[in-house]
Amino acid sequence: MAWNSNLRWRLPLTCLLLQVAMVVLFGVFARYDLDADAHWRTEKQRRNVSSDLENEFYYRYPSFQDVHVMVFVGFGFLMTFLQRYGFSAVGFNFLLAAFGIQWALLMQGWFHHLEDKYIVLGVENLINADFCVASVCVAFGAVLGKVSPVQLLIMTLFQVTLFSVNEFILLNLLEVKDAGGSMTIHTFGAYFGLTVTRILYRPNLEQTKERQSSVYHSDLFAMIGTLFLWMYWPSFNSAISYHGDSQHRAAINTYCSLAACVLTSVAMSSALHKKGKLDMVHIQNATLAGGVAVGTAAEMMLMPYGALIVGFFCGIISTLGFVYLTPFLESRLQIQDTCGIHNLHGIPGILGGIVGAVTAACASPAVYGQEGLAYSFDFQGSKVDWTTRKQGKFQIFGLLVSLAMALMGGIIVGLILRLPFWGQAADENCFDDAVYWEIPEENSIVYIPEDPTLKPGVHSAPLVPVVPTISSIPIAASAMPLVP
Amino acid sequence: MAWNSNLRWRLPLTCLLLQVAMVVLFGVFARYDLDADAHWRTEKQRRNVSSDLENEFYYRYPSFQDVHVMVFVGFGFLMTFLQRYGFSAVGFNFLLAAFGIQWALLMQGWFHHLEDKYIVLGVENLINADFCVASVCVAFGAVLGKVSPVQLLIMTLFQVTLFSVNEFILLNLLEVKDAGGSMTIHTFGAYFGLTVTRILYRPNLEQTKERQSSVYHSDLFAMIGTLFLWMYWPSFNSAISYHGDSQHRAAINTYCSLAACVLTSVAMSSALHKKGKLDMVHIQNATLAGGVAVGTAAEMMLMPYGALIVGFFCGIISTLGFVYLTPFLESRLQIQDTCGIHNLHGIPGILGGIVGAVTAACASPAVYGQEGLAYSFDFQGSKVDWTTRKQGKFQIFGLLVSLAMALMGGIIVGLILRLPFWGQAADENCFDDAVYWEIPEENSIVYIPEDPTLKPGVHSAPLVPVVPTISSIPIAASAMPLVP
Amino acid sequence: MAWNSNLRWRLPLTCLLLQVAMVVLFGVFARYDLDADAHWRTEKQRRNVSSDLENEFYYRYPSFQDVHVMVFVGFGFLMTFLQRYGFSAVGFNFLLAAFGIQWALLMQGWFHHLEDKYIVLGVENLINADFCVASVCVAFGAVLGKVSPVQLLIMTLFQVTLFSVNEFILLNLLEVKDAGGSMTIHTFGAYFGLTVTRILYRPNLEQTKERQSSVYHSDLFAMIGTLFLWMYWPSFNSAISYHGDSQHRAAINTYCSLAACVLTSVAMSSALHKKGKLDMVHIQNATLAGGVAVGTAAEMMLMPYGALIVGFFCGIISTLGFVYLTPFLESRLQIQDTCGIHNLHGIPGILGGIVGAVTAACASPAVYGQEGLAYSFDFQGSKVDWTTRKQGKFQIFGLLVSLAMALMGGIIVGLILRLPFWGQAADENCFDDAVYWEIPEENSIVYIPEDPTLKPGVHSAPLVPVVPTISSIPIAASAMPLVP
Repeated sequence: MAWNSNLRWRLPLTCLLLQVAMVVLFGVFARYDLDADAHWRTEKQRRNVSSDLENEFYYRYPSFQDVHVMVFVGFGFLMTFLQRYGFSAVGFNFLLAAFGIQWALLMQGWFHHLEDKYIVLGVENLINADFCVASVCVAFGAVLGKVSPVQLLIMTLFQVTLFSVNEFILLNLLEVKDAGGSMTIHTFGAYFGLTVTRILYRPNLEQTKERQSSVYHSDLFAMIGTLFLWMYWPSFNSAISYHGDSQHRAAINTYCSLAACVLTSVAMSSALHKKGKLDMVHIQNATLAGGVAVGTAAEMMLMPYGALIVGFFCGIISTLGFVYLTPFLESRLQIQDTCGIHNLHGIPGILGGIVGAVTAACASPAVYGQEGLAYSFDFQGSKVDWTTRKQGKFQIFGLLVSLAMALMGGIIVGLILRLPFWGQAADENCFDDAVYWEIPEENSIVYIPEDPTLKPGVHSAPLVPVVPTISSIPIAASAMPLVP
Repeated sequence: MAWNSNLRWRLPLTCLLLQVAMVVLFGVFARYDLDADAHWRTEKQRRNVSSDLENEFYYRYPSFQDVHVMVFVGFGFLMTFLQRYGFSAVGFNFLLAAFGIQWALLMQGWFHHLEDKYIVLGVENLINADFCVASVCVAFGAVLGKVSPVQLLIMTLFQVTLFSVNEFILLNLLEVKDAGGSMTIHTFGAYFGLTVTRILYRPNLEQTKERQSSVYHSDLFAMIGTLFLWMYWPSFNSAISYHGDSQHRAAINTYCSLAACVLTSVAMSSALHKKGKLDMVHIQNATLAGGVAVGTAAEMMLMPYGALIVGFFCGIISTLGFVYLTPFLESRLQIQDTCGIHNLHGIPGILGGIVGAVTAACASPAVYGQEGLAYSFDFQGSKVDWTTRKQGKFQIFGLLVSLAMALMGGIIVGLILRLPFWGQAADENCFDDAVYWEIPEENSIVYIPEDPTLKPGVHSAPLVPVVPTISSIPIAASAMPLVP
Repeated sequence: MAWNSNLRWRLPLTCLLLQVAMVVLFGVFARYDLDADAHWRTEKQRRNVSSDLENEFYYRYPSFQDVHVMVFVGFGFLMTFLQRYGFSAVGFNFLLAAFGIQWALLMQGWFHHLEDKYIVLGVENLINADFCVASVCVAFGAVLGKVSPVQLLIMTLFQVTLFSVNEFILLNLLEVKDAGGSMTIHTFGAYFGLTVTRILYRPNLEQTKERQSSVYHSDLFAMIGTLFLWMYWPSFNSAISYHGDSQHRAAINTYCSLAACVLTSVAMSSALHKKGKLDMVHIQNATLAGGVAVGTAAEMMLMPYGALIVGFFCGIISTLGFVYLTPFLESRLQIQDTCGIHNLHGIPGILGGIVGAVTAACASPAVYGQEGLAYSFDFQGSKVDWTTRKQGKFQIFGLLVSLAMALMGGIIVGLILRLPFWGQAADENCFDDAVYWEIPEENSIVYIPEDPTLKPGVHSAPLVPVVPTISSIPIAASAMPLVP
């Protein structure tokens, strides 16, 4: 164990400090939105709304819960594929997300939901907070196994801040559309995380190569994460779209894109293996790229076949990325991308931004209807004179801004995280839960280093027949009762 | 490994070919339903609907997401009970479902949602596509472990087609009611799958007997599937019922039936074991039979006690089936039913059809109210002169048609799948992920007996003490295939 | 194996008897609520409701499904942390909940939903039934591993009955508010279970110490339970609140409280470990305490920062409880609390009751608005002259009544469960699935070659060379290395 990875005071103090700050800031700034306030009944009369169903809660809550599951179970379990890092994958994701949503409620509130100096909270804020945290979970994927929980909390603090600034620039200044967050969440999160991991480059990780791989059932746990992300992605991309057709359309497009993505991911995974075998890494990750890439355009009139085409190519590109790009990034650019987020969020995120820009630029009254077009792109008020072409151009600006923010922010935060006192583990202890977790003793099993002098065959005769006998015993911790 | 199970080109080509076909067909045929189209706003005015909540999305979306979870996590994990087939269970289910929903959107669209030569897609289509694929997942349960992914895609292609034809005959020609799909989904899916597995009969499977069993934690993974199926089944049976009371009632009836089914399944499982012990296979499967059997009648005035009675008997019958029928089918009829779908979907499906017919035949204005009766069974327009008795008769016809279609279709598809070039594995390699998946190597850790006298070097122990040691090693499904 | 733990006839008879009773009672008493009855259409006209959306189903169903998941997957998997008790944790929770919801529908129906001698069932009844069962799941956590399924069914029968009586006293006689059930569900369930486990005290459990701990992947399974409980808790606390702002507010408050709770739990877990390492037990349980403690006040104007404060302290108190209180209770008071429910439901439940009382007592027109205040606390009809102070006082009475009922009931039920013929296991067989479950044979996988020269004892291989040989044994990730 590295001498400096003892979190005894570092982690508790960080957590308590941050949480106290949250309490104080919420006390000063956070109140309920009118839809969640006891004054709702009078408000209803004022708006003369007849039904409680008009309360935003009923429009958004089911989507919120789906998004919530994606952030905590989806991302959390997706990262449990490492054989000895499941506790940290799920546990640290849980920790950073729990802090992140609070900080995001404040940051986003200051930018978007300030009413006479109070932040008003409603279900939409909760969804946006989860969205913001999703970009931190993405970045976590790049540094998984190499950072301490303290570092993760620091990273979350800064990334949420930058995310909110970037989101404000895109949505409010550039007035881009980004329902599913291809740019704000995925592109930003991925390149932020990749920059951080580059700066935290660890030269001696090959010592832990073996721990960087999965084992049979850790891959099954990871599939829980994959499937919940995949299934609920339509809710993710539609959660904050306009009521009615936009939300409806966003769900359909995402559903289509994801379906197509699965087939092409499987196709490439098999085609790229010399014996045509499938690789769990691709099934767990590349199959999701379609959801990322359709994020911006999901609520637009992309058309079902358009969504399929997006998913089609993302499955291919993402799988190729896992096979060729990730090793290249590591060896050449010293970017150690544990979960391959560049293939799942980085490239698909950029593609999503471009697809969104093109879809917006090509939007026409013929397809949207005059009213629909104006409504879908808010071509009213300050934007009344905008053309779809202009919208498309600004979409591209938004993408570039996100990339710039991610790189700049990543560098700054990376340098901060390099400071030696955050309790990070030594290279040889990376990807190992035992550094930060009390691990249940399984004293029936021990670790033997692969000492070359201990190879079978070095030994005397009786061994040879013994080999098949014992080597055919599968083992695991699902400790069987030794029935007397 | 069988020489012919290399999928290197077979699987990629099949996937890409199918996906390209989907893209083209969606391009030619698929558009958005008005509720999901940018013209919704003008449509709203036309229908003079005041609230966006009247958009079908808000009636159906939560149910859709629950159904979606059942198809991908429910069926996928339910089949992970095999000790060395978890990757394939989840992965292939993922693959076939992702393809199936696309093809189902088209097939069902042509039959039910064609508007001036375009298929219009809305949330209801997504639900129906998931339903259709559910019947393929059911059939997958029968052939689990014995077919290649290429065969599964071929099977899906044909089964979805036949499903849609059968569904059209039942719902549009015979005008039967089948909200939860006891007939269209479960009966059809089960007997289709059983016929296919019969035709693909493998005489030498006893070689793999050991791999056909579960291990401790593979049974826990399977319980994830079971519980999500069980919990969301009320959404499944109510997802496409009429708005309001029908949907509400369908959920209640399913909830009741499933609850009763659990108790009787447990009772039988214990009663049929010589020491009164419970069998995970029964808990994982028989507990769900109640949801299948209440499928058709769920939206009818079955009454809560009626639902309980249905669940009561299904739990008993299904468990008996696992204990007595499945072995009989295998030994006598050469039907190798891996997951015992005959007990979970076959018999309960038929029962569900019958229960639905009887419930319909016994429907009366006294119970439904005059208006309610006409509305519930669409006794208007072409059916204005129908009696409940006639409805009941047609329900039975529907059941018989489903059975006939399943058997016929199963024979044809089975024969197609018997062709030697689909990459199927040899008998001795069935139920083994290693055939189609890159399996993580797990050879870095060894077992050391707790007995202090057995420390290396301490002694020149004969193997005698070692053997018990080894046989007491906890073992689990992460069981590595014994690669020759 | 204990001679008396054979359930061959006990369990089947208990299940069948109870289920038959349910069928009969449902037949006599249970019907559909008007919202779920075919007469809904006429009812709609009567109430002149224009939209089917006004059907209660659409207000409550999504919350219901979330609660349903918490009861079956949440509680079920949370208890799979024990290394050899996963089947029982999930399976028995499934069994008791399936029976409990039926019995709860009747008991609560008689108290709250009787319309001319019929219990009318709607989605709200389903939610309340799940709530009632949740308190049984809580109690199950205390006796986990030490009782037979027969005992659990008996316990459920009595606890559901007492729960309903207690709930009636609180909600109808004392007219307290308890949306999330801090008092009715958690306090009652926890102290009921603790009393039962005290009376069922087993002096020789240290024999099973090893089986009372977790193993690596059983802790991951438990995290599935934790996360689904954590994520859906906002739905739990808001499921039966008044439409509109109350439901909306309850979700927000719970979301905030839970988030804060995670950070303080992590902080304490690390601070209390000599090397600052985190303990899975705390992450799995203490992180949820915030949801319990905000249960009563969730729908009140607690304010977001109020919720954060509640979560803040609960995380600390709960973690302290696991470290210091649980061992004390076991050694001093002979209360063997397997899952530490006293820390997750007991103390937080009491705190929740107090927080609710204080929040109610401090409610003011300034915060709620005149109308909002009257509406939120039903200060109309018989309560028209109530003050918030009086409401607060009655909240405290409610808490005390719940505690009294729990202790009294626990004593009675505990004594009943002590009778020797319920098939309970001997002390040395506690926490072992093998007592009640057919466990997949796993040492059958050990393959011993036929070669007689390989029979144990035939050869004298020194163990040293054997070690590396064995080192080629495949192992699951759950096998933790003892780090050098």
